[in-house]
Amino acid sequence: MTKLDESDIIKIFQKKLGNKNFVSEDVEIFKLSKSKVIAKTDTLVESTDIPPKMKLSDAARKSIVACVSDFAAKGIRPQYGIISVNFPSDISRSKIEDAANGFRKACKEFGISILGGDTNEGREIVFNVCLFGSSDGIIPRRGSKNKDLIFTTGPFGYTAAGLDILLHKKSGKRDFVKKAVQSVLHPKPPMSFGIRNKRYFSSAMDSSDGLSTTLNEMAKQSKKKFVITNSLHKKDLETHAKMQKLNIDNLVFHGGEEYEFVFTINPKHKQTVLKNARLLKTPIIEIGYVTAGKGVVLQRNNKEIILKDAGWKHFR
Amino acid sequence: MTKLDESDIIKIFQKKLGNKNFVSEDVEIFKLSKSKVIAKTDTLVESTDIPPKMKLSDAARKSIVACVSDFAAKGIRPQYGIISVNFPSDISRSKIEDAANGFRKACKEFGISILGGDTNEGREIVFNVCLFGSSDGIIPRRGSKNKDLIFTTGPFGYTAAGLDILLHKKSGKRDFVKKAVQSVLHPKPPMSFGIRNKRYFSSAMDSSDGLSTTLNEMAKQSKKKFVITNSLHKKDLETHAKMQKLNIDNLVFHGGEEYEFVFTINPKHKQTVLKNARLLKTPIIEIGYVTAGKGVVLQRNNKEIILKDAGWKHFR
Repeated sequence: MTKLDESDIIKIFQKKLGNKNFVSEDVEIFKLSKSKVIAKTDTLVESTDIPPKMKLSDAARKSIVACVSDFAAKGIRPQYGIISVNFPSDISRSKIEDAANGFRKACKEFGISILGGDTNEGREIVFNVCLFGSSDGIIPRRGSKNKDLIFTTGPFGYTAAGLDILLHKKSGKRDFVKKAVQSVLHPKPPMSFGIRNKRYFSSAMDSSDGLSTTLNEMAKQSKKKFVITNSLHKKDLETHAKMQKLNIDNLVFHGGEEYEFVFTINPKHKQTVLKNARLLKTPIIEIGYVTAGKGVVLQRNNKEIILKDAGWKHFR
Repeated sequence: MTKLDESDIIKIFQKKLGNKNFVSEDVEIFKLSKSKVIAKTDTLVESTDIPPKMKLSDAARKSIVACVSDFAAKGIRPQYGIISVNFPSDISRSKIEDAANGFRKACKEFGISILGGDTNEGREIVFNVCLFGSSDGIIPRRGSKNKDLIFTTGPFGYTAAGLDILLHKKSGKRDFVKKAVQSVLHPKPPMSFGIRNKRYFSSAMDSSDGLSTTLNEMAKQSKKKFVITNSLHKKDLETHAKMQKLNIDNLVFHGGEEYEFVFTINPKHKQTVLKNARLLKTPIIEIGYVTAGKGVVLQRNNKEIILKDAGWKHFR
């Protein structure tokens, strides 16, 4: 194996990302059409965020997805990106190409142009992505009103079950395992749905740190109480949870990494939003409503169970 | 020692950076006054970029300085920043506070507002900084003309000597050691000088990858020959190099991390630029001239010695 130096790595990224300008100026310069700049950065770290069986191309794509998901939840289209990568010094050319392919694939998928980046040597692989867009404003985390309906995109729980399968070599029904693992390796943030429905959302937030974290944060920022009345998972998750003796609330509320989002709407917009969801083939679920008070509760058998914030936190 | 979780770390950063918004929205939103956005990212990795005796506050400051230096070379004032940090899970509160203090100090020093960031767990410390500014244009790397004069800010060679002292426990004259080590731990990019003189530069580039890399890149992008006629170092570097049997050209041209910059000007602007340098107390050196041809040569005793690009590259 020939040892690669930095210029080899830069060449691979230039070629794959179709960008001759990758690292050819001291700074990146770009035009954004509207009045405000929207930016989001996210970091994917090998030892913490790359489970077994995940290819570097999927990891690279996922580092873009993590930012796209936040843009989607705010109703903004990301336009440009800057990528910083750390690789160990003994990494192979094929792994670097695999990573660059993943970035290219994700950029094509979400319509992002890469402006440039930064390549570094480090003890482990780190992908840091910063995406940019522009808009006059964003859908805030705060902003929900009494009687607003609470929705989420996508059913929940597959990623937590999928991570459990990958990390602890668990088994399950073949179709379920495939679906759950795919949700970890190839998440699909509902970008078009977020952008299309922006005007109808009173508040919204990405769910990737865990649904319990997202719901509590939104309730707290709006100074409201969020009442969850409906189920957020599908039957196959229930079957798997029973089989594997997993707590279904843990899978649904505290797993994270779904890259779906939670949003609230005035009831008058319900039919429009449902129609748009059908058109874009984005599954959405009405999960509850907003009311005066504080915190998040699960309404079950006419009782209210408090849902604490127990989503993903680093260093825990 | 109490183990810190992510929210503890975020709180430390919020407090130190005087920014309640650090991680309180899905995305960062900011306004830039002019028509184009200028962005630059840089990564500082513990195993590669933090020499012995460097405090985390200095490392944090240096990760900002690395970006500021690129802005300075392009004549742009950075206005906003996003910071992503990786810390090992067993890091102490005092080290995190030290890092946050370094970021705060650097932001104050260069007038940068931190918009937000991202905290992660990883095997080693990584600081990734992305800075933003706005401008109608930048001073390009290409753009020098025949007969333009070539200048650099600051004398060169101290950082390479300083790194050698820190990494290999070398000694030297007390005053020199202090000066050389300080150039590594506390670099001062000439930001005001770059911004003030923007209109007079036909081309410019940050020197932090090594002067030989910078000069060759600028010559190549302009399709010109750069002739270096003057010396770029001071007497004390020569004395140290002789004492320690170090090659002075290696120290001056191939070390890197100076965070100074190279610029070219039409001779008619020479007096104005020299006057501005005096006013801002920025030491600058006229080192040569631009002519037809290609590559970079050192003119010594009426001979031309080719200066190859042998600056810093990761993975080498």
